Amino acid sequence: MSKTKAYAAQTAATPLEEWSLERRAPKPHDVQIEILYCGVCHSDLHTARNEWGNTIFPVVPGHEIVGRVTAVGDHVSKFKVGQLAGIGCLVDSCRECDNCKEGLEQYCSNGMVGTYNGQEKDGSGITYGGYSKQIVAHEDFVLHITDKQPLEGIAPLLCAGITTYSPLKHWKVGKGDKVGVLGLGGLGHMGVKLAASMGAEVTMLSHSPSKEADAKKLGAHKFVLTSDKGQTKPVKGYFDFILNTVSADHDYNFYLRMLSTNGVMVCVGAPPTPAKIPAFNLIGGRKSIAGSNIGGLPETQEMLDYCAEHNIVSDVEVIKMSEINEAYERMLKGDVKYRFVIDMSTL
Amino acid sequence: MSKTKAYAAQTAATPLEEWSLERRAPKPHDVQIEILYCGVCHSDLHTARNEWGNTIFPVVPGHEIVGRVTAVGDHVSKFKVGQLAGIGCLVDSCRECDNCKEGLEQYCSNGMVGTYNGQEKDGSGITYGGYSKQIVAHEDFVLHITDKQPLEGIAPLLCAGITTYSPLKHWKVGKGDKVGVLGLGGLGHMGVKLAASMGAEVTMLSHSPSKEADAKKLGAHKFVLTSDKGQTKPVKGYFDFILNTVSADHDYNFYLRMLSTNGVMVCVGAPPTPAKIPAFNLIGGRKSIAGSNIGGLPETQEMLDYCAEHNIVSDVEVIKMSEINEAYERMLKGDVKYRFVIDMSTL
Repeated sequence: MSKTKAYAAQTAATPLEEWSLERRAPKPHDVQIEILYCGVCHSDLHTARNEWGNTIFPVVPGHEIVGRVTAVGDHVSKFKVGQLAGIGCLVDSCRECDNCKEGLEQYCSNGMVGTYNGQEKDGSGITYGGYSKQIVAHEDFVLHITDKQPLEGIAPLLCAGITTYSPLKHWKVGKGDKVGVLGLGGLGHMGVKLAASMGAEVTMLSHSPSKEADAKKLGAHKFVLTSDKGQTKPVKGYFDFILNTVSADHDYNFYLRMLSTNGVMVCVGAPPTPAKIPAFNLIGGRKSIAGSNIGGLPETQEMLDYCAEHNIVSDVEVIKMSEINEAYERMLKGDVKYRFVIDMSTL
Repeated sequence: MSKTKAYAAQTAATPLEEWSLERRAPKPHDVQIEILYCGVCHSDLHTARNEWGNTIFPVVPGHEIVGRVTAVGDHVSKFKVGQLAGIGCLVDSCRECDNCKEGLEQYCSNGMVGTYNGQEKDGSGITYGGYSKQIVAHEDFVLHITDKQPLEGIAPLLCAGITTYSPLKHWKVGKGDKVGVLGLGGLGHMGVKLAASMGAEVTMLSHSPSKEADAKKLGAHKFVLTSDKGQTKPVKGYFDFILNTVSADHDYNFYLRMLSTNGVMVCVGAPPTPAKIPAFNLIGGRKSIAGSNIGGLPETQEMLDYCAEHNIVSDVEVIKMSEINEAYERMLKGDVKYRFVIDMSTL
C-alpha cells in the first residue's frame, strides 16, 4: 500500500479538499502510474455533489488520466516503467460476458467498474479517481499514450474523445455524410473535430450566436442558429447523423425533424427529464434515436492512436488542483473552452 | 369516367354505407383494376372516424387491394388485361426527390399520395380506396400478384405485410438473430411469419396468455407473457431486434430493457401519447428506437415475390361488404384472426 495525496469531496455539500488515500501495491498484472494531468468532466461534478444519488463519500473524481508508469507487476507485458500511460472511465469489468469478450467492456453485463465511485470486483473497496498523485490499475485497462502531443490535450480524449469517437465510428460516419453536432462543450468540441477529420460535412447546431466563430475554428463547415427559423428551415430533413451532446432538457423532436430519411440521432448526454417522442416522428423517414456510452478498451486505444495520427487533441484550460471548486462553478456556466485539465504537479 | 359502386363514410359519426364514385378513364400509363378482395386495416377505421383529424368526407377506405386488370392505357408496359394486380397504401408520389429516385416513395419529400383520403398530384381531387368495385392507378404504383396463392390472403400483404417486412429487411434480420414481436394483431402475425421465415428465433411478447398457442402456430419459437416477471426476467438484454406493432399506449422502456447491446426496437404502430424515454435507457447498451413506414414500390414487389416463394399469406376472415361496420367493432376488440378481408363480389 502507498499513501497518495488526492482531492476529495467529503460530502455532497462541501467543496473538494485535499485528502489522503491508500493505493494498493501493484499486483502481478498491475501498472502504477504517476498522474501528470487529469481532465475535469461534468460527471465529476455530478458525482461530487451526489446529483445521481449514488455517491459513496469521500469521493475522488477524475477519469481522464494521463501520466507516467512508475512500477509494474511481475506479469505485466504491455507497459514498462517510464512509459506514458492513460486511464479512462473504467478500471475493470467481468471480462467473461459477451460484451467484455468483444471489447465492449463499457457495456459489461455484470457492470463495469468505474474509475471512481466504483466497487472493486475483488471486494477490496471503492475506486478513487484521477484527482490524485498516483493510481494503480490492471494493465488491460491502461492505455498507451503518445509522446508526440501535449499531454494536457490528450487527457480529455479518455472520456470526451472516446464518447464522441465511438458513435461516429459505430454508425460509420464518413465522407459524404452530413453531420450535425448539438452542443459545443467538452463533448461537442471533440465531436466537431472528430467528425470533420473523418471527412463528414459538419454543422454546429447551437442557440448561441457567439459559438459560430469558435465552431468553425474547430472544423465545423456550417453553423445553424437554432433559435432562428430562417436558419433551421433549410436543414429540415438534412442530416444523416446528429451527435447530441446536450445533457440539459431539450426537445428531441425539434432535431428529429432535421434528420434525413434513415437519419440517426445519437445521444451521449442524459437530460434529467425523459424525452417525449411521438412514434410518428420516427416512422416518417425511418429515423432512429440511439444512445452511446464511452467506448471499450480496444476502441479507446484505437481512438488515441487515431488522434495521434490526425494530430487531434482537446482544447483545454490547465488549472491548479486548488482551483477545482472554482472550475466547477465556471463549468456550470459553460465558461470553459472546452475542458479544464488539472496539472497534478500542483497538488 | 366510370361510375363505381363503393362503401363510404359520409361523416365521422355515421356507419359506412353504399355510395357511388367516379373513377377516371385510364390515361396512357394507367391500369384499371376490378377489385376482388380488399383487406381491412386499422387505418381505415381511424380515417373513417376522423381520429387523425385529417379526413375529407366522404371517404372510401381500403389500401390492401387485389384484383384483375380490366383495361390499360396505351403506354402501359407492365400489365396486360386479365392479369392479377395489387395496390397498396400509395398511388402516387413526386417521383423526383431523392427518396422517390431510390424507390422509397413512402418517404417522398413532397408527400406521397395515399390510396384514399389523398390529394391527386394533378389537382383532380381526392383519392378513394379499395372498398369499391374498381380502381385506376398509374402502372408504377401497381404490383404484380401471383396466381399461386389465395387472393384473400395476399391482400393484407399490401399493408400489414410490407409494414413488417421492410424493417426486418432494412435492419438485416436473419439467422442467429433473436427477434421479439410485440403485439399479435394484423401486423404482429405477419411479423412472426416473416421473421421466422428469415431464419430468426422469434419470441411473441404478449400480455395475453391465450396468444401463446396461436403465436406458436404462426411460427413463433417462444412466448413471453409480459405480465409475468418470471418470464420477463430471463429476456432482459435478450433481443437483437424488437418489432413493436402496438399502437395503444404502452411503456417503451419496459421493452428497451429486453434489448441486447446494440439492440434496436422498431415501432410500426403509433400510440396516441408520446413515449417518455430517458436517454440513459438508450446509452446503456447502445440501444436504438426507430420507426418504419410501409415500404416503397420496389420493396413491396420484392415482399410479394418473397411471400409467394415462401408460401406466406395473411391469416384472414373473409367478410361481405355489408359486414364492414360490424367488422370495425370486432377489430376494436381484437376479435379477428388476424385480418378482415372484404370479398368485393358481395358489393
